[in-house]
Amino acid sequence: PPGKKVLIVYAHQEPKSLNGSLKRVAVEELSKQGCSVTVSDLYAMQFEPRATRNDIVGCLHNSEEFNYGMETWEAYKRGGLSSDLLEEQKKVQEADLLIFQFPLYWFSMPAIMKGWMDRVLVQGFAHEFPNCYDSGLLQNKLALFSFTTGGSREMYVKGGISGDIRYLLWPMQHGIMHFCGVKVLAPHICFAPEYVSEEKRKEMLVAWAQRLKTLWKEEPIDCSPEWYFK
Amino acid sequence: PPGKKVLIVYAHQEPKSLNGSLKRVAVEELSKQGCSVTVSDLYAMQFEPRATRNDIVGCLHNSEEFNYGMETWEAYKRGGLSSDLLEEQKKVQEADLLIFQFPLYWFSMPAIMKGWMDRVLVQGFAHEFPNCYDSGLLQNKLALFSFTTGGSREMYVKGGISGDIRYLLWPMQHGIMHFCGVKVLAPHICFAPEYVSEEKRKEMLVAWAQRLKTLWKEEPIDCSPEWYFK
Repeated sequence: PPGKKVLIVYAHQEPKSLNGSLKRVAVEELSKQGCSVTVSDLYAMQFEPRATRNDIVGCLHNSEEFNYGMETWEAYKRGGLSSDLLEEQKKVQEADLLIFQFPLYWFSMPAIMKGWMDRVLVQGFAHEFPNCYDSGLLQNKLALFSFTTGGSREMYVKGGISGDIRYLLWPMQHGIMHFCGVKVLAPHICFAPEYVSEEKRKEMLVAWAQRLKTLWKEEPIDCSPEWYFK
Repeated sequence: PPGKKVLIVYAHQEPKSLNGSLKRVAVEELSKQGCSVTVSDLYAMQFEPRATRNDIVGCLHNSEEFNYGMETWEAYKRGGLSSDLLEEQKKVQEADLLIFQFPLYWFSMPAIMKGWMDRVLVQGFAHEFPNCYDSGLLQNKLALFSFTTGGSREMYVKGGISGDIRYLLWPMQHGIMHFCGVKVLAPHICFAPEYVSEEKRKEMLVAWAQRLKTLWKEEPIDCSPEWYFK
């Protein structure tokens, strides 16, 4: 709806890929609704995934023994995080909805996107004990994981060789987003697009656009073990 | 035992950290046993986590539409992967045991280590359909995930706020190692070392050295959904 802000964190090298098209469809559909849409195109930005001392501007809190979590927490409080992190945090802060668009790599997100999580969601900004899970600092936001797989839908079922697809969503949805207080919408999964016809791939794009039309009416999932492992 | 080869893939920025000590203890104990130990110190190597076109030397198989999985597969077959990947693959090929030593970041490994998985374990080298899972290409190897957590042991139990620690091992142990045919030893977990006494931390190092003494007699876990979600 008009006024809603969306951040799409996007990790694919190729604009012509299905992931590229899914991202484009989301920008178009959400913009059409009057949303303000921002994209962090991680590969195009050459986003840095490594958590290092470079993320802290100026002196360290404890230069004797480098502790990344402690240092970024301290740096956050004094406004001393590197500018690329500050920019991403500003986008997150303003967003009502975060969409993560990526190809599944090894039952998880690509390293470049994991680096975004590792570096952007620092203590003080996204959580600060005991403010985690339902009292995490990024409340009143929604997140949605939208991804493509290599394996087929039949492989990702309970009893299938790769197990229920929900098993692998636990670290991403619960361990990251829920930990920060973000509510999670049902994932959007395109199974094995490389092994289907061009027509089927077009149907996948249409289905995504269709879902986005009523996305703001969706209820978040109940992000508890039952949803994942029942 | 003499002659066994071990590769430790290590991801911590600080040699003085508990992770640094755990790595050092493993090198010492395994060397004492007569093993040949190699360490990939990812931060020290400034290991590249991003999966990009730079991983392929020379021309692309399809330069019209970049597909990372396809291109690295083709490059592997013609010997056209970048030299940093070839070096890591050589270390993996020679190893009997892979130890991954890292601090848990967001219910998973740090991005720099995820990048190692994304980039090193390419199709053709580590798996090649239908050679996956029990018939993956890295058979007769063992893997062990050794990591530290921020949260306490009490948080990581069934019914606890962060769920059973085994839930988050599924993508790493089953989705990556088992997929490549590698047998998985029980994980080694040091809970919340930042919140315990120096004495407790020393006990953690002793316990790790102790376990390594009889490691080669251990049986791999049964890497099936029951182990994780029973």
